[in-house]
Amino acid sequence: GLDPYLAESPIPFEEFKLNSDGMLTVVTQDYKTNEVLMVAYMTREAYEQTVETGIMTYYSRSRQELWVKGDTSGHYQYVKSLTIDCDKDTLLAKVRQVGNACHTGHYSCFFTDLVKKEYKEENPMHVFEDVYDVI
Amino acid sequence: GLDPYLAESPIPFEEFKLNSDGMLTVVTQDYKTNEVLMVAYMTREAYEQTVETGIMTYYSRSRQELWVKGDTSGHYQYVKSLTIDCDKDTLLAKVRQVGNACHTGHYSCFFTDLVKKEYKEENPMHVFEDVYDVI
Repeated sequence: GLDPYLAESPIPFEEFKLNSDGMLTVVTQDYKTNEVLMVAYMTREAYEQTVETGIMTYYSRSRQELWVKGDTSGHYQYVKSLTIDCDKDTLLAKVRQVGNACHTGHYSCFFTDLVKKEYKEENPMHVFEDVYDVI
Repeated sequence: GLDPYLAESPIPFEEFKLNSDGMLTVVTQDYKTNEVLMVAYMTREAYEQTVETGIMTYYSRSRQELWVKGDTSGHYQYVKSLTIDCDKDTLLAKVRQVGNACHTGHYSCFFTDLVKKEYKEENPMHVFEDVYDVI
C-alpha cells in the first residue's frame, strides 16, 4: 500500500502533461461526499509543496504567485488523496475542506445550474438516510 | 425551477471564460456517486450540442474534431445536470455513464493514486451501508 506519510510523489511532476499555460489542472473534491469544490492549477512548486505539507497549494493565475489556499481565509484544504488521470494531465485531489471552498461563501464554486434534468433517485440508500435523519 | 427539457443554455457560451486554447474545461462526474470520471474540453459547438442532445459532446484536442463520447464505444454519457463555477471558466457535468468512461477500461480515468492518507471513515451512514449489504 501507499505510505500514509509519503512526502514525495511516486511520479515526478516532469512526467505530468501541462496545459498551454504550463500548469497542471487540478480538480478538488470533498473526500466524504465527493462533491466537486473547485478547479484550479498547480505549478511544479505548488504540487511539491502540496505533497510535502498535505495542504492544497495552487498557483494563482490572477496574482501570479504561489497560493496556499486558506492562508488568508483560514479555509484550508487538507489532502486525503491525490490521483492522476490516465493521460497524466489532470490531478484529482480529495480533501477535508475547512469552511467554504468558494470565495463567494458557497461550500463549492459550482452553484449555478445551467441544465438540470429531473430523475428518480434510485439509490435505496436514501431510505436509510431518511431514517437516519429521524433518529 | 429549471426546465427538465431545456434545450438552450440560460447563459450563452460567449459568457464563459475559455482557457488558453479557446476551450471550456469540463469535469464530468457520476450523478449518483459523484465519482469524477474524466476532465475534457468543449468548444461552443460541443457545448451547444451537449445541451441540445443531452449527450456529452466534447472537442477532441488530439483529433481536432467534435467528439460525441460513446459514438465509437457505445459508452455514452447522458446529461443529468450542467453547472458552471463562480468565475465561469469550468463546467461540471453530472451524467449517467454507460459502460466505462476511460478508454483503458476503467470506470474513471482517475485510477493512479499518488498520495493516499489513511483516515477513519467518520460517516455513520456506513453502518447503514453495511446493514444494507447484509439484507
